[in-house]
Amino acid sequence: MKFELQHTDINSKARAGKVTTDHGEIQTPIFMPVGTVGSVKAVHQRELREDISAQIILGNTYHLNLRPGIGILEQVGGLHKFNGWDKPILTDSGGYQVFSLAQMRKLKEEGVTFRSHIDGSKLHFTPENVVDIQRSIGADIIMALDECPPGDSDYKYAKSSMELTHRWLQRGVNHFKSTDPKYGYSQTFFPIVQGAGFRDLRKQSAETIASHNMEGNAIGGLAVGEPTEVMYEMTDVVTDILPADKPRYLMGVGTPANILESIALGVDMFDCVMPTRNGRNGMFFTSEGMINIKNKRWADDFTPVDPNGSCFVDHHYSRAYLRHLIISKEMLGSQIASIHNLAFYLWLVGEARNHIMAGDFHQWKTMMVKKVTTRL
Amino acid sequence: MKFELQHTDINSKARAGKVTTDHGEIQTPIFMPVGTVGSVKAVHQRELREDISAQIILGNTYHLNLRPGIGILEQVGGLHKFNGWDKPILTDSGGYQVFSLAQMRKLKEEGVTFRSHIDGSKLHFTPENVVDIQRSIGADIIMALDECPPGDSDYKYAKSSMELTHRWLQRGVNHFKSTDPKYGYSQTFFPIVQGAGFRDLRKQSAETIASHNMEGNAIGGLAVGEPTEVMYEMTDVVTDILPADKPRYLMGVGTPANILESIALGVDMFDCVMPTRNGRNGMFFTSEGMINIKNKRWADDFTPVDPNGSCFVDHHYSRAYLRHLIISKEMLGSQIASIHNLAFYLWLVGEARNHIMAGDFHQWKTMMVKKVTTRL
Repeated sequence: MKFELQHTDINSKARAGKVTTDHGEIQTPIFMPVGTVGSVKAVHQRELREDISAQIILGNTYHLNLRPGIGILEQVGGLHKFNGWDKPILTDSGGYQVFSLAQMRKLKEEGVTFRSHIDGSKLHFTPENVVDIQRSIGADIIMALDECPPGDSDYKYAKSSMELTHRWLQRGVNHFKSTDPKYGYSQTFFPIVQGAGFRDLRKQSAETIASHNMEGNAIGGLAVGEPTEVMYEMTDVVTDILPADKPRYLMGVGTPANILESIALGVDMFDCVMPTRNGRNGMFFTSEGMINIKNKRWADDFTPVDPNGSCFVDHHYSRAYLRHLIISKEMLGSQIASIHNLAFYLWLVGEARNHIMAGDFHQWKTMMVKKVTTRL
Repeated sequence: MKFELQHTDINSKARAGKVTTDHGEIQTPIFMPVGTVGSVKAVHQRELREDISAQIILGNTYHLNLRPGIGILEQVGGLHKFNGWDKPILTDSGGYQVFSLAQMRKLKEEGVTFRSHIDGSKLHFTPENVVDIQRSIGADIIMALDECPPGDSDYKYAKSSMELTHRWLQRGVNHFKSTDPKYGYSQTFFPIVQGAGFRDLRKQSAETIASHNMEGNAIGGLAVGEPTEVMYEMTDVVTDILPADKPRYLMGVGTPANILESIALGVDMFDCVMPTRNGRNGMFFTSEGMINIKNKRWADDFTPVDPNGSCFVDHHYSRAYLRHLIISKEMLGSQIASIHNLAFYLWLVGEARNHIMAGDFHQWKTMMVKKVTTRL
């Protein structure tokens, strides 16, 4: 993997860059649609490519390890071959899901033992085997195993959790360096900053993470229930330390405004289930604000879903029709919402990039944050 | 509406024809995807047009009357404007849903009173108001209100039910003739043959229906639990009587083999939820046979969904991936299955038409029925 820093904003820490992988280039800042179980929910791969203009998608180690299982993925030659997505894929290490989804979790120095939420079977993740699993999934970008403490963790817990994450990281890095890519293209490894909502821990963690000198770095354990201002503050502390010549990935963030503010703080990569999950529930993000399509006021609004939208669903369907679909629980409602919201997120980061390159990011961001936080 | 009978097979009663409506032409025999609530489940209108090559879709009076409601449809100018489908639409009268879905049904000479399965509200269908509702929906083809007796009805019940349907028909025809199309394009009205599994009732009903001399005729009350042979026998009796110069629509049928056999009996139009509903449950219909994708044997079959298929999903996705999606209850599985099955049904009736025109329908049909009933 290669990262080229193309432009840095003078009025903020925002950056435009280019990540090059063996599956193609990624223009940053970028938003990565989440394909947890090997499919971005309700969206065809053709739509991801042609209508949403996704450049990289996520897969999830915890889920893919359960279904279809690593045997199947190894047999076909990795997730790209399995799901027909030939651009880059990043995989989450599964740590977050073990802590949010799995049952009967037992955390030890060695790793974490848990039971599958699907069939209750007993499973074990270690810093080493999640590297092996992600190599087998065929991720272009592999994430380290971390413990993700709750947003309201106390200092003592946050510190010892961070220290465990750092020890796990060293083991993960060692294992990553001693193993080879699985399918003939290169795979890279991102460590993850932890430290909950404590400046000194975040600082310490960012320094530790940076010292491993990997090709990119991630910020984890944010957007997990802490106040938004804390999230920005921690991000700000961390991006001051993480090296400028490597991409920075803020995991699981967020709303359109969160993304714009975090770009201003020097983040390059984002993922979040919000555009798809909230979309399925009737929340539409647009360049003029948020639409809760279930609201009665849209029942006879026959104007297009998003007149400014760049995507076919924005013009083929009306708000009234969409409200009808979502209220009637028709799958097409979820499909339209997912495509629209993802296309909007990709448009938003693309515009951010254009404005960074043009030098007027800060003014544009201030204006856009107001718009995207408006409730229509 | 205009119907042109283009060719009749010499070895069967199969026919090729062309229906012309103000929303475009329909090449018969044709299969009509079911869009109950104003959307063909899991399928974009773009996909219906470009990938499935649908020529006409169905809407449902019972469902659309409940949601979004006739007020909204009148305000926007009909279902075509509402859902963005600009080709022909046929609407079911709602009779079948009142008898299969609604609660607290009371059947009287005047009509049928029932409670909505959505919110329990009290509603009333008469032969007259279902014409009004369908005019407001903006159907190109409006169906008469009928009572649809169960497949195992006794003679006495079947006869009195049929007689009620005939009296309702006369009222429906009168009302249709005394009212105008709603949105500036022509709307037509199809009566429905009933008579359960009794030859003499079916004969009598077909004669009554034919005597109304409407622009097309439908056969109802089949594929409701009776043996397949009875369905074919009744269809055969009825198509001997219904006029040859008008399209014949067999409602709610069926499997690919049912459709081929019924084409051979002189039917021109079909609808069924099977390709979409069974598809969502993992049943794939192909030109080589049926695939139950949940079967373990497909888990590592990385060949395309349907190598002979004409549609993008047939080649973009493998059977193993599809099995994974269906087993994991990912929406994309339902989307792929629905598109594939509908594209296959449309291909099948298109091929039937080609073979009728070419004069070798009977041989082709015999060969295809064997194939499509094979379990792969």
